[in-house]
Amino acid sequence: MLITLRDAPADAEIISHQLLVRAGFIKRITSGIYAYMPLMWRVIQKITAIAQQELNKQGCLETLLPQLHPSELWKQSGRWEGYTKGEAIMFHLKDRQGRELGLGPTHEEIITKIAGESIQSYKQLPVNLYQIQTKFRDEIRPRFGLMRSREFIMKDGYSFHSSEKDLQSTYNEMDKTYKQIFKRCGIETVAVDADSGAIGGAASQEFMVTAEAGEDLILISTDGKYAANQEKAVSKPQNAIMLKPNEPKLIETKNQYTIDELCKNQGFHGSQIIKVILKLAVLSNKKQYPILISIRGDQDLNETKLSNCISKKFGENVLKIKSLLKEDFGLEGIKNIPLGSLGPDLNDEFLNKASNWEKTFIRFTDKSAADLECFICGANQIDKHRVFYNWDLIGGTSDVVDIRNALPGDSCVHDSQQILKEKRGIEVGHIFQLGRKYSNALEASFNNDLGQKEPFWMGCYGIGISRLAQAAVEQNHDESGIIWPLSIAPFEVIITIANIQEPSQQELGEKLYKELKRLRLDVLIDDRKERAGVKFKDADLLGIPWRIVAGRDSIQGKLELIQRSNGATESLTIDEVIKKLTKEICSKKSEIST
Amino acid sequence: MLITLRDAPADAEIISHQLLVRAGFIKRITSGIYAYMPLMWRVIQKITAIAQQELNKQGCLETLLPQLHPSELWKQSGRWEGYTKGEAIMFHLKDRQGRELGLGPTHEEIITKIAGESIQSYKQLPVNLYQIQTKFRDEIRPRFGLMRSREFIMKDGYSFHSSEKDLQSTYNEMDKTYKQIFKRCGIETVAVDADSGAIGGAASQEFMVTAEAGEDLILISTDGKYAANQEKAVSKPQNAIMLKPNEPKLIETKNQYTIDELCKNQGFHGSQIIKVILKLAVLSNKKQYPILISIRGDQDLNETKLSNCISKKFGENVLKIKSLLKEDFGLEGIKNIPLGSLGPDLNDEFLNKASNWEKTFIRFTDKSAADLECFICGANQIDKHRVFYNWDLIGGTSDVVDIRNALPGDSCVHDSQQILKEKRGIEVGHIFQLGRKYSNALEASFNNDLGQKEPFWMGCYGIGISRLAQAAVEQNHDESGIIWPLSIAPFEVIITIANIQEPSQQELGEKLYKELKRLRLDVLIDDRKERAGVKFKDADLLGIPWRIVAGRDSIQGKLELIQRSNGATESLTIDEVIKKLTKEICSKKSEIST
Repeated sequence: MLITLRDAPADAEIISHQLLVRAGFIKRITSGIYAYMPLMWRVIQKITAIAQQELNKQGCLETLLPQLHPSELWKQSGRWEGYTKGEAIMFHLKDRQGRELGLGPTHEEIITKIAGESIQSYKQLPVNLYQIQTKFRDEIRPRFGLMRSREFIMKDGYSFHSSEKDLQSTYNEMDKTYKQIFKRCGIETVAVDADSGAIGGAASQEFMVTAEAGEDLILISTDGKYAANQEKAVSKPQNAIMLKPNEPKLIETKNQYTIDELCKNQGFHGSQIIKVILKLAVLSNKKQYPILISIRGDQDLNETKLSNCISKKFGENVLKIKSLLKEDFGLEGIKNIPLGSLGPDLNDEFLNKASNWEKTFIRFTDKSAADLECFICGANQIDKHRVFYNWDLIGGTSDVVDIRNALPGDSCVHDSQQILKEKRGIEVGHIFQLGRKYSNALEASFNNDLGQKEPFWMGCYGIGISRLAQAAVEQNHDESGIIWPLSIAPFEVIITIANIQEPSQQELGEKLYKELKRLRLDVLIDDRKERAGVKFKDADLLGIPWRIVAGRDSIQGKLELIQRSNGATESLTIDEVIKKLTKEICSKKSEIST
Repeated sequence: MLITLRDAPADAEIISHQLLVRAGFIKRITSGIYAYMPLMWRVIQKITAIAQQELNKQGCLETLLPQLHPSELWKQSGRWEGYTKGEAIMFHLKDRQGRELGLGPTHEEIITKIAGESIQSYKQLPVNLYQIQTKFRDEIRPRFGLMRSREFIMKDGYSFHSSEKDLQSTYNEMDKTYKQIFKRCGIETVAVDADSGAIGGAASQEFMVTAEAGEDLILISTDGKYAANQEKAVSKPQNAIMLKPNEPKLIETKNQYTIDELCKNQGFHGSQIIKVILKLAVLSNKKQYPILISIRGDQDLNETKLSNCISKKFGENVLKIKSLLKEDFGLEGIKNIPLGSLGPDLNDEFLNKASNWEKTFIRFTDKSAADLECFICGANQIDKHRVFYNWDLIGGTSDVVDIRNALPGDSCVHDSQQILKEKRGIEVGHIFQLGRKYSNALEASFNNDLGQKEPFWMGCYGIGISRLAQAAVEQNHDESGIIWPLSIAPFEVIITIANIQEPSQQELGEKLYKELKRLRLDVLIDDRKERAGVKFKDADLLGIPWRIVAGRDSIQGKLELIQRSNGATESLTIDEVIKKLTKEICSKKSEIST
């Protein structure tokens, strides 16, 4: 069933998406939902087999967990609200009894419940369970084909340990195993420090396929020793342009509400100003906290870091962080808030009349702002700013934290000679040290060597199997189509019979086909009644690593062997073809798996 | 991760469910939803591999289709209402854009859409696509573990043809392939004629694992030539006891409302009476039809057959058939309906005042009733029946149809010397000739050899993979536990080290383990610090076909080899064990796959 399209679909913004649709690998059913057609399913099965082999080698055990999750478990972990209301990325429904069920985007709750009920003693630990399964996310904006789809295939694994040390050792093993899996799949990845996000936990690392179409911004040091997702990346900001201390004073700043306007009108530099940002955080305890952030004027707030600071401060999940606009204050009954002239010391009294919000600002100062010795900041009066001020004059800093986006060009923390460069990446894997977050919440415990009950230490490990398949295309293609890495290609070899009306061509092609099948190579034969040119184009589009053409020279017993990746072409006898292919394919396979 | 339980769970009504839970193969997460633990997942993977091998041999292509289905497609096929409202077995939800999605219980709509968009010409046909995937059903009463669960693994396949003849030929091939799959899985099945049900279509056949705990009643002829699900089975009813014709008259039958009461008080036999039953059918066009059924008094109505008759008569799907009780007439504003004395000729005028129902009875006469030459029937007046009546006297029969349950003891249609016997079965497979029902509804067509557009002929083929795994246990167990068929056992061999403190036992056991692994046998070693008796009991419970004990005789280099199915025990050297096992297991494997 070889069906290719001439035109790329209108909604395909990136090349890998276009190619997979055009070559008939995937078929869109509705927004963000695709069918894996037979060729694609072969790719997925090959990736799956590589993952299984490498994981089983490490003693991981495969399972299959339910896709429908009872809401009770997610309420116990405190994630039901955030996943069905806050960002609401979990599809959910009511069954005929009116009980709420979620469609699993991830399985910490389910596996923790199982481990808690199955594992009694430290003697049974560690245990490392995984599954390969379709998962669901009700994406706000599904796009890029399998990259950000609403149904996707994940390998997710969860490990259980009697100590943090044992968790760390498995985490390091999984790091190596993941690198080996990606290597065997023939894709190049970079491991980067990552935020643990809503999953929670201590350490976490992402595996990124670098590609221009990547949705993630990653920052890599010039020496390659440090790489991180921007959500998580740390750096030293470029030096501020020092504001030479002078007599503190108030200035008129009518119509200068942004850092840019202030700089343009007053001749300041952004790095000399304290930017004050107001946000509202909604926590899982339902309370709404106004947040006041002070950051250096030329720097950007990192909401992931901010969310983690808030969550840590309150020991509650953050359901939502939203920007506060003039209207929002109006709705709360707050008047005269001097937006555009805010200072870090904005009085809590402004919140007195708030009808829904808490009545005190939660204040954070980014280190970039805290480090300024002399600065400009808002005067908390409309159209007025303070110049030549310092922290002592305004009552000191609030909690000093890192809530700043690291930027390309910043210098590195590990070595300030090293500069951060920007790359874009597609996340294909993620490993976490979860710690005891879920085992505590779900009361999953074992008996330790002293006979006492103790919550498990947990790790979790994911690979986006369907996303990886597409990322491989994003990394491996040319203007004619896909160039599959050998190990995950739907077929290793395609035999194209140029003219099937010609008996010599058909005979030679079919003889080779049978022989290669007997040798257990993955071989496809294209004996359609199409013009040779159409078949050659299709073969290039499909991206099968080796193509053999039974064409005019068949009558002399000669075949053409073409390598998809570089176009190298040879004219060979059938025996030479077989010898070359078995050598090339088998050697490549053994080289990769060691 | 070997965790067994001493007690069967309270909700496990049948032995296979009890054993799978006790032996740690499955774990209940919530009503009708189970996790497949590592041992069970191995069983599922083995069944899957057998199905894939046999299907691929027939040129079937594997795919993976989405689990979330847009409601539009199901509305096009006319099934959305019935699956979300009528029986409502489809879980459904709204996404963040408010669009309705169903969780796929079956994939006719999706695959028909894909075929319609992908296949252009008769030259590309036939095509046979399949997938192995978790499906969902919001069961009214989930029970029996994996037998009737809300999440389950199915192999479902769909074939597309340019002619009915080609469909029939593939249908017959699939029949053979299915039998081969079940044979290789080591289970005994019976193929029975089946109703096509809500799926629709012409011919259909079910594959049943016979077992006392089966939910389906199947009827098999003494000569084995006919077998059918009761929903579908046809037969000749036992002869009626003739009522000798006499002067027709009216009799008083106060307090004799049922056939039983009438027989007891008047000395009639049930086979002499016309039983009249009133039902209400709700169709997909939203209309509600009162149905009047006449059937011989000693026979039972078959609702599946009735539903098919109604659906055929109106060309509409039947959403619901409900019994009509006195209250129902009251609610419609219908008074004085002579329940308990109804005759086949009950006047339509009773329906004149109906507020929601159609105002004419749809009447069906079962052949068993139509065949009576002289009978008793209700007089349509309270407490009165008519005796010695015939069809001419009451205006003739309505549509004569077969809407009767065939019963054990009935004689067969193919040979009236043959009698139907009753067996219970577990459905593990089902094949259908769908015809053009879905291709018409979804406008999926190809160009035929005359260049004209024509809807596809379609077949569909299902295997309940997870149900099959449990049915194998229901068919293969003893009082000590499971006895897995070799081909789908989680492991082929288990080595039990009786006392792991004893170096000779541990050494010999581990040596054998390594050797069997090297020979690619599926072998498990039980080296837990448990008492030997506990380990033996667990091995029996787990049901692994071959057990080897490294016990006291290890010091003399002797091992015990025990066959799980019959308990046969031999004392052998390590070389003898290896020789015997490779012979037994390899020979069994090759015997099965031919």
